[in-house]
Amino acid sequence: MAVVVMKFGGTSVANVDRIRNVARHVKREVDAGNQVAVVVSAMSGTTNQLVAWVREASLLHDAREYDAVVASGEQVTAGLLAIVLQAIGIPARSWQGWQIPILTNQAHGAARIAGIDGARLRARMGEGEVAVVTGFQGIEPERQRIATLGRGGSDTSAVAIAIAVGADVCDIYTDVDGVYTTDPRIVPKARRLPRVSYEEMLEMASLGSKVLQTRSVELAMVNRMRTRVLSSFADPGAIPPVRSGSNWPDIGTIVCDEDEIVENQVVSGIAYAKDEAKVTIRRVADKPGVAARIFGPLADASINVDMIVQNLSADGGHTDMTFTVQAAELPRALEVLRKAKESVGYFDVESSDDVVKISVIGVGMRSHAGVAASMFKALAEKNINILAITTSEIKVSVLIDSAYTELAVRTLHSVYGLDRE
Amino acid sequence: MAVVVMKFGGTSVANVDRIRNVARHVKREVDAGNQVAVVVSAMSGTTNQLVAWVREASLLHDAREYDAVVASGEQVTAGLLAIVLQAIGIPARSWQGWQIPILTNQAHGAARIAGIDGARLRARMGEGEVAVVTGFQGIEPERQRIATLGRGGSDTSAVAIAIAVGADVCDIYTDVDGVYTTDPRIVPKARRLPRVSYEEMLEMASLGSKVLQTRSVELAMVNRMRTRVLSSFADPGAIPPVRSGSNWPDIGTIVCDEDEIVENQVVSGIAYAKDEAKVTIRRVADKPGVAARIFGPLADASINVDMIVQNLSADGGHTDMTFTVQAAELPRALEVLRKAKESVGYFDVESSDDVVKISVIGVGMRSHAGVAASMFKALAEKNINILAITTSEIKVSVLIDSAYTELAVRTLHSVYGLDRE
Repeated sequence: MAVVVMKFGGTSVANVDRIRNVARHVKREVDAGNQVAVVVSAMSGTTNQLVAWVREASLLHDAREYDAVVASGEQVTAGLLAIVLQAIGIPARSWQGWQIPILTNQAHGAARIAGIDGARLRARMGEGEVAVVTGFQGIEPERQRIATLGRGGSDTSAVAIAIAVGADVCDIYTDVDGVYTTDPRIVPKARRLPRVSYEEMLEMASLGSKVLQTRSVELAMVNRMRTRVLSSFADPGAIPPVRSGSNWPDIGTIVCDEDEIVENQVVSGIAYAKDEAKVTIRRVADKPGVAARIFGPLADASINVDMIVQNLSADGGHTDMTFTVQAAELPRALEVLRKAKESVGYFDVESSDDVVKISVIGVGMRSHAGVAASMFKALAEKNINILAITTSEIKVSVLIDSAYTELAVRTLHSVYGLDRE
Repeated sequence: MAVVVMKFGGTSVANVDRIRNVARHVKREVDAGNQVAVVVSAMSGTTNQLVAWVREASLLHDAREYDAVVASGEQVTAGLLAIVLQAIGIPARSWQGWQIPILTNQAHGAARIAGIDGARLRARMGEGEVAVVTGFQGIEPERQRIATLGRGGSDTSAVAIAIAVGADVCDIYTDVDGVYTTDPRIVPKARRLPRVSYEEMLEMASLGSKVLQTRSVELAMVNRMRTRVLSSFADPGAIPPVRSGSNWPDIGTIVCDEDEIVENQVVSGIAYAKDEAKVTIRRVADKPGVAARIFGPLADASINVDMIVQNLSADGGHTDMTFTVQAAELPRALEVLRKAKESVGYFDVESSDDVVKISVIGVGMRSHAGVAASMFKALAEKNINILAITTSEIKVSVLIDSAYTELAVRTLHSVYGLDRE
């Protein structure tokens, strides 16, 4: 017997027929004697519709009300899946975030899970009842209001539930059959990675791979929760049920400890993130404290700033500051900067979202030099201009004009020997 | 200053533009210094979609899961209205049933409100914050699961909230501008009733008038909560704001005590209910206890039986039993009867939903004889066959073939002198 958490995203539950298919995956695990919790997203399209209504209601809206509206999507899926499971003879009940409860902090719209009491879930799962849990949401305990985890937060819900119930594995079912060296839509020669380390997956997630949400990988890494990426569109019978402590079959991608991966390549994958926006602040005073006055208010507004480039002072007293934010947060960032104009003291703000961040990722970089150099060389040979650079121990990222996305990704995929033969 | 509860149904909140119009009605009351709670339904169409999904998932579904799915609709509207109100400068927050809490019994799908703690709502309303409350739902306290009140339950939510916060009036905004002597789509000469008694409204509601839900009128009657029916599509400026203890302007329909109505007619209105279904049980044993064995299981399944006709015993030992249920409950009723076949002992069950119940209502009947007789005579003159009859102190109802609905309603409307000149 194993304890399994299974997570199904929006396209996997897009309609009742697909929810029936999800039920077949669940049945496979139940039939194998496993205890199962299922975490579900909203039916695809639903969240977009809800968000569109909120925006139509007001562009500047109360995040608590946004959450109350948007959280309804998962509520629907969870109820429907519980009904479908019951209809095929599997005891099941839906659990909303506030019923478990899944406690969060107060950062509505992008809340972090603060704690989950898994006791009731575990007890019910132990009695053979499948727990169908709404992903993406919890409850902020002080004001008892629904808080959502932000887009893709259902992955995080799944990993957190897996940790809370002491699962053997957290299986994330998506519309792809694993993690690839890069986006196969751009590079047809991309290869599925049978295993990938938490660290690499974390970089891939935060650098644009849509397969897993960053926070979910962080959580899995910190808690050493084995996480698999599987295809929900696969024949439910083609995936072997989870066996506790078994050898893991070569299916999907297992996100695990670096130590469990036998063959490491220097570079494991190429990621790209199109949802970046570049902001340039013209002529800010080039003196101590200015950066704090710019980035402090942005941080207070929970806007993540990524790459930062400070130009050389042109006239000795002033400089230009360029940085990137998530494209979705650009209007809010510009609003924050407008309000901070007096305290910062700048001439003008320019912005653009015609940029893309391309990243090369691999734990092997720790022991191999020259990865960055070969990246810059390869891009230069294709006449691609680099607007900004950031690096970490296991990745190198560059910001380029978005028109060159496909060319850059294909070039780098080939340069680092990732093309499938 | 008055305390006002305003309820807006599905068509009044069908899209964000209409929600903005609702906000203008709310603003009128807030600007007049009133404390306001707003009870909202799901955006029209939403509940139907949710119910369709549940049915697609399984025709025999767990009522608790049905509730979890269907309750999401009001959650969306409440959040959107709070956002729209905030956007026009009115402090507002959404309240879901479990947050107040609105406690219900365990009859999921058709739950009754067991109690509402109005203290927190009152306190926040006293601070000038508009409370936007999800209609149609509450929480069943023992298992802490969402329970819905059944179709149209938002009216009941509104009246119950009005009672809990001690409102001066419960204003129900709908897509019609008041209660009419009958359905104006069938009888263009139907008249708006400026006032109608709780008792009459109760009969009209339970006999097919869709304007107010039966349970809401019961609740208003028992608690003497003055309830008005108004049009949400009226120009928000054309409705005078509520004034505590003022004379009530002649707008919409006021549902109030009989004593407050100066001119009573013998018959106030003609109602029709198409959502009836007729069930005939053939050849049941004609002996004591059989009725209990038929209607006991139906009651246990929370299926309301309305008209009952027991035929004369044909062969001394057996009889036919005919009764009506809500058409929506017909499949469940037939299932219950199938299971009870052995204990009841009958030959066969037949059913039909091609029937309509036509009712004539008026508190004046108490003191005027002959209302039923003139009804039967008028129908006979049009060759309309009566399948069953029920009467109460203030109404007479007949079951007829649904093909004659319009003819019967028009005929009776004219016979009782209700046509507008």
